[in-house]
Parts: sequence; C-alpha cells; structure tokens
Amino acid sequence: MSKTAYEIIKNELKEVESLIRNQFSGNFGLISQAINSTVLSGGKRLRPALLLLCAKAGKNYDKSKALNLACAVELIHAATLIHDDIVDDSKFRRGMPTLQSLFGKDAAVYAGDYVLIKAFNFLYSVKDFDIINLFSRVMEKIVKGEIKQKEDVFKVISFTDYFKRIKKKTALLFGLSCEVGGIIAGTDNDKIRALKNFGINFGIAFQIIDDILDYTGNREILGKSPGNDIKEGVITLPLLLAIASPHYKDSLLQLIEGIKTGEDNSSRIVEIVLESGAIERSKEFARRILEKSIRSLSPIENLTVKSALESLALSSIERTF
Amino acid sequence: MSKTAYEIIKNELKEVESLIRNQFSGNFGLISQAINSTVLSGGKRLRPALLLLCAKAGKNYDKSKALNLACAVELIHAATLIHDDIVDDSKFRRGMPTLQSLFGKDAAVYAGDYVLIKAFNFLYSVKDFDIINLFSRVMEKIVKGEIKQKEDVFKVISFTDYFKRIKKKTALLFGLSCEVGGIIAGTDNDKIRALKNFGINFGIAFQIIDDILDYTGNREILGKSPGNDIKEGVITLPLLLAIASPHYKDSLLQLIEGIKTGEDNSSRIVEIVLESGAIERSKEFARRILEKSIRSLSPIENLTVKSALESLALSSIERTF
Repeated sequence: MSKTAYEIIKNELKEVESLIRNQFSGNFGLISQAINSTVLSGGKRLRPALLLLCAKAGKNYDKSKALNLACAVELIHAATLIHDDIVDDSKFRRGMPTLQSLFGKDAAVYAGDYVLIKAFNFLYSVKDFDIINLFSRVMEKIVKGEIKQKEDVFKVISFTDYFKRIKKKTALLFGLSCEVGGIIAGTDNDKIRALKNFGINFGIAFQIIDDILDYTGNREILGKSPGNDIKEGVITLPLLLAIASPHYKDSLLQLIEGIKTGEDNSSRIVEIVLESGAIERSKEFARRILEKSIRSLSPIENLTVKSALESLALSSIERTF
Repeated sequence: MSKTAYEIIKNELKEVESLIRNQFSGNFGLISQAINSTVLSGGKRLRPALLLLCAKAGKNYDKSKALNLACAVELIHAATLIHDDIVDDSKFRRGMPTLQSLFGKDAAVYAGDYVLIKAFNFLYSVKDFDIINLFSRVMEKIVKGEIKQKEDVFKVISFTDYFKRIKKKTALLFGLSCEVGGIIAGTDNDKIRALKNFGINFGIAFQIIDDILDYTGNREILGKSPGNDIKEGVITLPLLLAIASPHYKDSLLQLIEGIKTGEDNSSRIVEIVLESGAIERSKEFARRILEKSIRSLSPIENLTVKSALESLALSSIERTF
C-alpha cells in the first residue's frame, strides 16, 4: 500500500507551518482577522504539499530551498485570498458600516500587501533569479486574471474564456508549485514540464470542483450559502453549461439580469442549475481534466512521488464525487 | 550658477518615464483610472530623481541599474498611492454605489498589486540581493506603518508617534532611494549613510509640508478641499500642535468626536488650526528638519550632486514658504 501524499512530507509540512507562524506571531491589531482567517487558518497547505512532493522527484533534495519556496507559494495564495475577500465582500455592504468594521476591512488591503511582502522574503531567501522570474511572471498573470474576472462580472463568457480564467485564478500557482519543485529537485526539463502540466491540469480540475461546490455544497461545507458566485456576478462552469441548454437559457439570463438590479435570485438560479444536469456535466469536465493531469505524470520515474501526486489529485476531487 | 537638480538628470528621467510607460501601454480596462491617475500622471518623479542624483555621487555610474531601480521606487510609491486611495475613499461611500463604479474601485486593489509586481520586476532586473533585501525591509515597514495609521485613526497620538508614522509613510522610501543610489555609485559607507540620512530627513520634512498643505491649501492646489486628513481621522502635526495648546484643546477634541459620529466639522477644525498658530510652528519643524537633512550631506564630495540634492530639498519646501 502506498503512503499517502501527506505522510511522505509530514515533517516538512510541520516545518512550513512553523516557518509561516514565526513570521506572523506578533499582534496584528486591525489586520488580525484577515491574517487569522487565511495565513493561520490551518488549511491543507495544498500548494506547499505539491511543491514539497515535486522537490523529491529528482536526485537532489534541497530541503531548505523547498521549505522556503513552499512558504512563498502558500503566502502568495493567502495574499490573493485576502485581496479577493475585500473585493468580493464590498458590494454587500448595505448602509453605513460601523467605523471599526470599516477600517478593519479596509486595512485588509494592507494585510494582503503585508502577506505578499512576506512571501517575497521567503522567495528571495533562496537567491535564485530563475525561480524569482518564474514567480514574477506567474504573479503578473494571476493579477491580470483577477482584473479580467472583475471586468467580466455578470457576463456570459465563452467556455474558452472560463478555462483561461480558472487557469489564471488557480491553476498557474499549482503549476508553479510543481514546476519549481521539479527545478530544485534537479530533474530533466521534460520531467519539469510534466510536473508543471500535472499542476496546471490539477489546478483547473480543482477550481471546477470548487465552482461545482458553490452550487451543490451546503452552508456547513462552504462556510457560506450556495449561489455565492452568482451573487457576486461570477458566472462559472455549471451556470455556463445550464445557459448553453436552450431549455434553461432565457429564464437564467432573466434571473441574472435581475440580480444586477438587486433582486435576490441566487437560490432560484441554483435550483435551475441543479435541475439542468449541468452539475453532472461539470463533474465530467473535472474528471477528464484530472485524468489528463495524472497522465502527464508518465515521465516521472520516482514512483513514490508519482503515486503521492496522483493520490493528492484524486483525493481532492473526492470532495464532490 | 549651479544647474538645477532636474537638469542634471533630465535625460535619465525621460528614460525612466518611457521605461514605465512601456510597462503600462496596454488597455487596462477597469483599472485604467487607477493606473492613469498614479503611474501615468506625469508627476515630478521625485523618488527617481533622488535615486538618479545619488547614483552620480561616486566613482561608478551604472546607468542601467540606476534607471531600473528608479522605476522600482516610483512604482512602489504609485502602488501605495493606489492602495491608500481605496482605503481612504471607502468611508465616503454613501448608499449604494453603481455597479460599475464599485467594481472599478474594488478592482483597484488588483491595480495596486499589479503595479507592485511591475516594481518588483524592475527591482529583480538588477540582480542584486543586497539591494532586494533593502527594498524588502523598507516595504515591510511601510506597510506596517499604513496599518498602524489605520489603527490610530482619530487618536491624538504623541509627537513621537507622529514622526514615526511619517517616517514610515514617506521618509523611508526617500531614504531608500538615496541609499540605493549611493550604493550603486560605489561610494563609501559613511557617504551612503549620509545620503540615506539626507533622504530620510528630507522625506520627513516633505510629509510635514504635505500635512500643512492639507490645512492651508485650496482646492486648486490639493485637488481636494482642505481638512481632508481629519475627515479621514488622520490627525497630523498642525492639529496635534493646536491640541497641545490648552486654549484650543477642548473645542478641538469635541469637534473631532463629532466627526466620528458623522458631523461635518472639518472646516471648523481647519479654521481653529489656522487661528492657533500651529501652522507656523509646523513650518518651523519642517524647516529645522530640512536644515538637518542638508547638513547630513556634508561628507558628500561631489559638489554638483550635493548642491542638486540641496536645491531639490529646498525647492520642495518652497511649496509652503
């Protein structure tokens, strides 16, 4: 029986956890909430896990580099979460918020900046300009993707644009984590490419699943009620697929128009999407892309790492299947 | 007659301008407004000017390094402007803003991130980890300062805390620009320190003047009405000095309390501050710190650079005197 992914890197993940916690051990006053709910939330540390596993795929295992870069990818993820949260929540402010909640919320702009700067510090510490350039290019694309998503709010985008969006939103950082792991492991270029492709496709599947959960999940799983994306004007795969079906198109477009003018149509939209069969078709997309991600691991010779990455990918998709 | 500071580096500043514009030549959609009003506003480029001048203070003049780092300091400044603007404006939102303005504003969170990433790209391009570390440490302090300023909103802070605040808000980036210029110029450590101290004290004086202008300026100069800082709960030197005077203390504290509960007391506060003589005393502070900044240039042997820096500092203070 193969070890699970998290067992192989259990000790490293503990070290990542304490490296991060050491950087955020002070009193953060106004931004504490933003820091606690992201950086210190004790999440799965999926991106560090990918990086640490891939860092074991080759002949070299540079633990110190791997740990520092694992912290960097996790903190970049946390910083985007914080800034997304500011953007997402703001339109739900009704009337005048209290001074305290207002400054707390707005100060989260700086919380994100602070976390990002800490991410850069981990990145610089490995003193490798090729890796810095990789990070830098990916981060630019991620931010461009976020801006595009805001521009496309309430737009029924094409499937191509949807996949481009989630690639930037999620998959590029997964891909970077795997690629960078492969680089510091000293593997060949074709293996580095294989790891990167695995990461990107895994990330795409992961985000599709996330988008499905926004329709099928309950408050307990999501920490928020279903239909949150469409409330914010973000039209994801399940809704795109439902709209693509002539039977549901008109009523869905009308309900979406209604949300723009303040109508509370999200639960009705969720109902129609569930009824339309779009969830099953979305899952089919996710499954196929996940299979593709696993196939791209074929050049990887280290079977422990290979099977750990596979199990990591498969277990994440089990959230919905 | 000595050349003015800007004449000496006229060509370099043009190059900085086009290097920056090249990075921001596309269509920025939702974030265009944030980009145009900061990065592309055609400001004085004071921080690049400091860096470029100091880069000429030694035996080496590495133009390429100087240009790239000049772009980096300017874009860091622009990014903080963008994020400050989000934070500052938000509490003036009354009722529900339009969808378009709302997303445009919120997308500015990403505009700031984008500009910051571009700043890092310029920084990395010089491939010097000592300089990266200097930038990184300063940026962390700047963000911490911004958070502290939010925490201290409407608080009558001590003079010491006020000077700490403006050091972080403005002076550290001035100091960094000068220090980094000195480093790439290959000057001795004592000269680098002299340039850094010049920059920091110049920055402190510069920010005091900015804080004075918020009381004495008119809409034409400021682009906003006087009393803007106190509307946002930011208590600066002129108001602190007025509060320190027993004759004005109680009425000012009462008016400040009123602003917290929504009263429109800012013009009354501006009147009292002007009447109290606090402006003259603030100017005296600025003048003394500016003199200190100029005195710290004494170890600088390159007289052209030295007098250019002096004239740059003096001309900026002429805004109020």
